Amino acid sequence: MRRDLQAAQAFLRSELATDSAVLPTARILEWLQSRRDAHRFSIKQVQLDAVKGWRTDRDTGYIRHQSGRFFTVEGLKVVTTYPRDVVFYQPIINQPEVGILGILARRFDGVLHFMMQAKMEPGNINLVQLSPTVQATRSNYSKVHGGAAVRYLEYFLDRSRGRVLVDQLQSEQGSFFLRKRNRNIIVETDEDVPQHEDFCWLTLGQLKAMLRHDDVVNMDTRTVISGIPFTDGNGAPFRGYRAVLAASAMARDQGEFGNGEIISWLTELKSLADIKVDGVPLDGLPGWSRDEWSIHRSDRSYFSVIGISVEADNREVKGWCQPIVRPSAIGTTGFLTQQRRGLLHFLVHARMEAGVFDMLELSPTVQYLPGGLESDSPFLGYFQDPPREYVRFGAIQSEEGGRFYHYRNLNMVLELPASERIVVPPGFIWMTLGQLQEFVRYNNYLNIEARGLLACLALAEESNG
Amino acid sequence: MRRDLQAAQAFLRSELATDSAVLPTARILEWLQSRRDAHRFSIKQVQLDAVKGWRTDRDTGYIRHQSGRFFTVEGLKVVTTYPRDVVFYQPIINQPEVGILGILARRFDGVLHFMMQAKMEPGNINLVQLSPTVQATRSNYSKVHGGAAVRYLEYFLDRSRGRVLVDQLQSEQGSFFLRKRNRNIIVETDEDVPQHEDFCWLTLGQLKAMLRHDDVVNMDTRTVISGIPFTDGNGAPFRGYRAVLAASAMARDQGEFGNGEIISWLTELKSLADIKVDGVPLDGLPGWSRDEWSIHRSDRSYFSVIGISVEADNREVKGWCQPIVRPSAIGTTGFLTQQRRGLLHFLVHARMEAGVFDMLELSPTVQYLPGGLESDSPFLGYFQDPPREYVRFGAIQSEEGGRFYHYRNLNMVLELPASERIVVPPGFIWMTLGQLQEFVRYNNYLNIEARGLLACLALAEESNG
Repeated sequence: MRRDLQAAQAFLRSELATDSAVLPTARILEWLQSRRDAHRFSIKQVQLDAVKGWRTDRDTGYIRHQSGRFFTVEGLKVVTTYPRDVVFYQPIINQPEVGILGILARRFDGVLHFMMQAKMEPGNINLVQLSPTVQATRSNYSKVHGGAAVRYLEYFLDRSRGRVLVDQLQSEQGSFFLRKRNRNIIVETDEDVPQHEDFCWLTLGQLKAMLRHDDVVNMDTRTVISGIPFTDGNGAPFRGYRAVLAASAMARDQGEFGNGEIISWLTELKSLADIKVDGVPLDGLPGWSRDEWSIHRSDRSYFSVIGISVEADNREVKGWCQPIVRPSAIGTTGFLTQQRRGLLHFLVHARMEAGVFDMLELSPTVQYLPGGLESDSPFLGYFQDPPREYVRFGAIQSEEGGRFYHYRNLNMVLELPASERIVVPPGFIWMTLGQLQEFVRYNNYLNIEARGLLACLALAEESNG
Repeated sequence: MRRDLQAAQAFLRSELATDSAVLPTARILEWLQSRRDAHRFSIKQVQLDAVKGWRTDRDTGYIRHQSGRFFTVEGLKVVTTYPRDVVFYQPIINQPEVGILGILARRFDGVLHFMMQAKMEPGNINLVQLSPTVQATRSNYSKVHGGAAVRYLEYFLDRSRGRVLVDQLQSEQGSFFLRKRNRNIIVETDEDVPQHEDFCWLTLGQLKAMLRHDDVVNMDTRTVISGIPFTDGNGAPFRGYRAVLAASAMARDQGEFGNGEIISWLTELKSLADIKVDGVPLDGLPGWSRDEWSIHRSDRSYFSVIGISVEADNREVKGWCQPIVRPSAIGTTGFLTQQRRGLLHFLVHARMEAGVFDMLELSPTVQYLPGGLESDSPFLGYFQDPPREYVRFGAIQSEEGGRFYHYRNLNMVLELPASERIVVPPGFIWMTLGQLQEFVRYNNYLNIEARGLLACLALAEESNG
């Protein structure tokens, strides 16, 4: 009956295992390299007019796939009063379908393992990263591109094949996608799963260890595992988290502010903000121009849209072209944390992004990419060369390589001394980890950057020591 | 620090009071009648072309206010695969601003009282109903219509004037509004509040007593008070609810299914549904036509859009014209409940409505208006002349009289004997009251019809006896 609790206990056993006999931790990176070496990939930039299968609308300048599916690059006009009065234009990716980011789980020797895929995405640093078992848009898995079937998809479509451990509809980058959401799902099966050379079984502890490396665990994996609770059904922290979270609030409705107060704070911000988001032509988008190679800002800040041609021998289709977003710089996404009244609190920002589903989402303290709508954070300075003893987590992580070309963010969690006085500006609030996890659960609250940082958390202590 | 808990305790004291010296329960209806008598109101239907201040777009047939604000009557095309494959057209009200539904609270002799307004709305049965202290769109309170200021508004705009007890962004009728949401807020003040003859102070117990009468407590009041928890911060039921809920689950994450499972169920429905909602011209909307008096269906089912002319001597403006929605019949909205594994469970429907903010909302078991998109409920029969001993609540309640002309729903909660076997179709799930209240809290989950039924609950036992 209490499947939630069963799930929690399964995670508990899993978290304890920082190594595994199935694939020892010391051999994961080597295995990943072997998968990279086993395949032939080639990525080339092509002119926008030479992106095969895609065409530019004469009327609007929108870039679409000839099937009408996958995604469209459109123009967006944002008129907002939050965080300040501003009119803002940018290209945006419109991908209305809900896709699946699914991880298949199974016990080996009683310990939960997750099936990770060594998946190539054209925009990835190192090309191949640890990805969910299944990562597929609906176009993708309904075979619009005429390619091969998506491996292991059946475990996520047919409920009789396993038990659901996590299942949430979560948003993706609101600065680049128009209201995009994906189903984040973990299914545990008791069946013998047929093995494939591009897939391996890792424990959660092993995944957390891999997160300490730059650009190894992809964004889709990070968002899915961010849905795994840090506590069991009774609010007790799992053993693997105890060291890090000893001084933190695990209760899901306890902190400097109650959950009701946090909801009220967000309600007020949403109610007072006047945000109008409208599709506008991409041709002649103010501040942006298109040449044969890209759509870009006159000052080349923020990002550009380019075209690429891809060849791969282990994807559903062997070769394709597509538009892709190339940011102008490495971004920074980080949480300031502090012990307050005996509990570790995270400084959370209610951030407006052009494509966000519900106006504002709970975001990291800082989320910085030069030229973005909210790039002038008062807290950015903290993340530039912080004292070593403040750093509880720090690594560079990649955003999704299917839509972003080499988009990397420094992911960082800093703990400030309790003595440091922080002036909290409007639009920011202190929350405990237990509260953040409760809000994750109800969807539409935490943005993907915040969730990605939560996913990195477990071994922060260790990485600092 | 724990303001949530403080609030819960305040409600507790309030709920106990089913009478008050401020305005005795026996005199409330008489007082309401006196306010009705004190004013002069006149409502007349006018031809659509004679709705002063409003014009019809030549291109689209959309009906707009000349200021460009308030609301617009538009056309909508819905192509959906849920609950079945269907293409559906209907007029819809687009009112993108977030308004305020605010109730001011204050203690008299230590008991929390709510300031209710005897407010005239042109579409109300009996014209005047018990309404929140403030009920205002942003156009309304920023004085687009050039009328008088909204009374008591300052308590909701200036946080220093009181303490927030409830503050949520909640949806309104998705069958008639395009993604409309309002801020539902209760503020407790310690100040002496200047009295006005159209306002009175009532306890929550008194409001619940008034809900047993037809058409006395308006929809806006019902949605705001649905945010008041039935339990204190520790999950213990307030005394006033104990009799009704003795056998019900008060824990917020306990029932036949855990909250995680309920979220998973909803995630799957949303992920698999393909719902496309697009604005289309109102002129020539398939299945609908416009004559001089109304926009209506050829078979006159569902609803029509008509024009009215209003005169009132106590509103912000003395007279105005507006379009308004007139349903074709009295609707039915009801929950089936049943003791299951020792806990009272509500049979909840994930309902698709054309204008819903996030595809599907948790809705009553039955929500019926002939001609609607999901009007063919398998459970409708239960609510037609049910055995008296099943009825835990039953009264006719009005929908909002500012946008709906005489739109009434039979609100009913039935408890089936534990022996009755219910086959639960896809799109339905059993939830306890504690779970429903937890989902209310996180917004974007329960639709207004479900919240309205929760608001009626407290005295169900008594009304049955």
